[in-house]
Amino acid sequence: MSGAEGVPAQRSSRHIRTANRYRVLRRVLAAGPVSRPELAAATGLSQATVATVTGELHRLGMVRAAGFEDSAGGRPRALLAADPAGGTLIGVDVAETYVHAEVFDLTLRVRASTRLAPAPGEDGPARVVERIARAVGRLLADDGAPAGAPVLGVGVTMPGMVDREGGVSVFAANWDWREVPLLDLLTRRIPYRLYLDNPLRATTVAELWFGAARGRQDAVVVNLGTGVGAGLALGGAVHRGASNGAGEWGHTTLVHGGRVCRCGRRGCVESYVGAPGIIRTLTELAPDAAAARAGDQTAVIAALAAGCRAADPVALRVLEVWADQLGAAVADLVNLLDPEVVVLSSWVAREFGAALLTAVREAVDRYALGRPAARAEIVLSPVEGNPVSLGAATFALEGALA
Amino acid sequence: MSGAEGVPAQRSSRHIRTANRYRVLRRVLAAGPVSRPELAAATGLSQATVATVTGELHRLGMVRAAGFEDSAGGRPRALLAADPAGGTLIGVDVAETYVHAEVFDLTLRVRASTRLAPAPGEDGPARVVERIARAVGRLLADDGAPAGAPVLGVGVTMPGMVDREGGVSVFAANWDWREVPLLDLLTRRIPYRLYLDNPLRATTVAELWFGAARGRQDAVVVNLGTGVGAGLALGGAVHRGASNGAGEWGHTTLVHGGRVCRCGRRGCVESYVGAPGIIRTLTELAPDAAAARAGDQTAVIAALAAGCRAADPVALRVLEVWADQLGAAVADLVNLLDPEVVVLSSWVAREFGAALLTAVREAVDRYALGRPAARAEIVLSPVEGNPVSLGAATFALEGALA
Repeated sequence: MSGAEGVPAQRSSRHIRTANRYRVLRRVLAAGPVSRPELAAATGLSQATVATVTGELHRLGMVRAAGFEDSAGGRPRALLAADPAGGTLIGVDVAETYVHAEVFDLTLRVRASTRLAPAPGEDGPARVVERIARAVGRLLADDGAPAGAPVLGVGVTMPGMVDREGGVSVFAANWDWREVPLLDLLTRRIPYRLYLDNPLRATTVAELWFGAARGRQDAVVVNLGTGVGAGLALGGAVHRGASNGAGEWGHTTLVHGGRVCRCGRRGCVESYVGAPGIIRTLTELAPDAAAARAGDQTAVIAALAAGCRAADPVALRVLEVWADQLGAAVADLVNLLDPEVVVLSSWVAREFGAALLTAVREAVDRYALGRPAARAEIVLSPVEGNPVSLGAATFALEGALA
Repeated sequence: MSGAEGVPAQRSSRHIRTANRYRVLRRVLAAGPVSRPELAAATGLSQATVATVTGELHRLGMVRAAGFEDSAGGRPRALLAADPAGGTLIGVDVAETYVHAEVFDLTLRVRASTRLAPAPGEDGPARVVERIARAVGRLLADDGAPAGAPVLGVGVTMPGMVDREGGVSVFAANWDWREVPLLDLLTRRIPYRLYLDNPLRATTVAELWFGAARGRQDAVVVNLGTGVGAGLALGGAVHRGASNGAGEWGHTTLVHGGRVCRCGRRGCVESYVGAPGIIRTLTELAPDAAAARAGDQTAVIAALAAGCRAADPVALRVLEVWADQLGAAVADLVNLLDPEVVVLSSWVAREFGAALLTAVREAVDRYALGRPAARAEIVLSPVEGNPVSLGAATFALEGALA
């Protein structure tokens, strides 16, 4: 904003045009072949605006004619669909233990994927850039974009803080990266438009386009993995904050003065509700339980989830304690932000599934104020596959529409 | 939105026009006599847009010509100022123990104010409406709007949940009001455009127009009174949430399973950092302290604040404990929302002033993640007088500009 008075930068005609394109294309992707009048009804845009925007999308090669439908005796209505061959998008999920890259057609269906696992210590910027470039090159060589489907962009997520605005440098604590000019480094290796962000925001944009936040004004995407975070989609768009750092719910306080968190502070939400926190609760409650000896973190969580399905008392007790803590922390999000929907996402949520959903719903009703609690739906993420690489590719799609 | 896809309703041309009017008038109010080129530079709008918007504001009678300034040898530049006589605005702060009403000129300077205190038990909707109407009538009779300064609207804040969209009914727990059609009741008594909301949002809009959130994209207004709340100004506008209930930070969890809160739940932020929470901390730490016997809640808080200024060890210890709890809870807002500025507002913040600011800054740096903590300014509210009635009148101003 650089000194301009407090009205969002996005409220310019150019940003409205972009937002309208998002709106129409999201609907086309959601509804399959769809007529222009249906698009107008679903998006709230005027028929004239829909005609303009679909014309633009057609010229961009992103939508194509898809036959006609009967219109109750009237003139048959032309249908539109997204054109899978209208472009190729690439999403790269860079994590501490792997690089997972996927190539998508324009309907965001996966055409191919690849995964590289680094040897220990290969976490310097040069090696990571090399790995990303190799993954992208392999994908395009193996699978190839369909003829005439240009690569519209490559989205890359990094485990850390990403500064999208200023040059795009990166801060990744676990790798001891500080102010690495990653975009510059990648640009030298990858000849496509690049979009950098972090996994939390990728998951959020994936829910906005393809998941439970679609069509919502205010949604919170609760990521439950090793780390935890809350992606915020407010006013129908990702809320980034002043330093693209919003959503660090994992390091908000659940128990003032409580458990030591890996961030060094005490009582953080993450130290209770992330996978290591759940396992700590298990070992506190029942150190001799079979689940506690199941193996690595992933195996223990899987064993607990299986235990819940089999009505194992220890597993159910862990779920009860965990869901109570998680529900209190989700209730804070509900009280503070008053969202329409809270989406439970990531691998830990997927493992526990419906049992988790029920327990969290009860806990949120216990902890949140009545009115926002009644308003907020709580759902499991409907996004299949890897939501991070999907979201990364979606950033590239958004960039191509802007 | 009623079914339309997830893009903010405000992203229509009409809403941009309104937002541009806000932007220009805010700047005119802030800068005093100002030239159009200065307005363009400060707002980030084009000179053509500024010309259009100032023309509209001129026709609405809200701005007037205010002489010329030298332009370094060039043609003298015409200056514009807000026209105090361009309209009259009324703000009514309805609290549980009083009705405070103020009449403002168009520069939001107070022309007159009045305060009515109800007898106990006079809290039914009919009596409250009667009191609001009486306060408004008295103000206009006593002071009168300046000749030719029409009453543009009356903003009213209510202590509870206010549904602005649907008919505008109110839920006020302490009065046992449920779904009262307050707007209908007021409309029968007050012949002006009415705007209803709650005090937290009024304080927030006051900071956006006249305080520390002016010119900011993302700000949090932390209200410290008997109750506490966090007004959210995100993307340069008040974030309301799905049921106009956002900002209930007072009932987010600081200590899972901790103190019983007046809401019936345990460990809420409010039960530690609101005035009664501070007093409870005082009586836990030093039940025999002189401050604890100072009188009612207001007197005890004033005695503690005076004690801090006089370096009284008990008062300083209470401040230390309180600021640590408050800092942890404010750090949660910083981690989650990544704001540019956190504004400490309301009477408790004003009592403690600079000592509170210093202690909270230190605590936030202790609890929040480094990057968002470094980004977030923390300031005391610069708004003078009653920010709630000012904010209520500002809702009326915004309504007149829409």
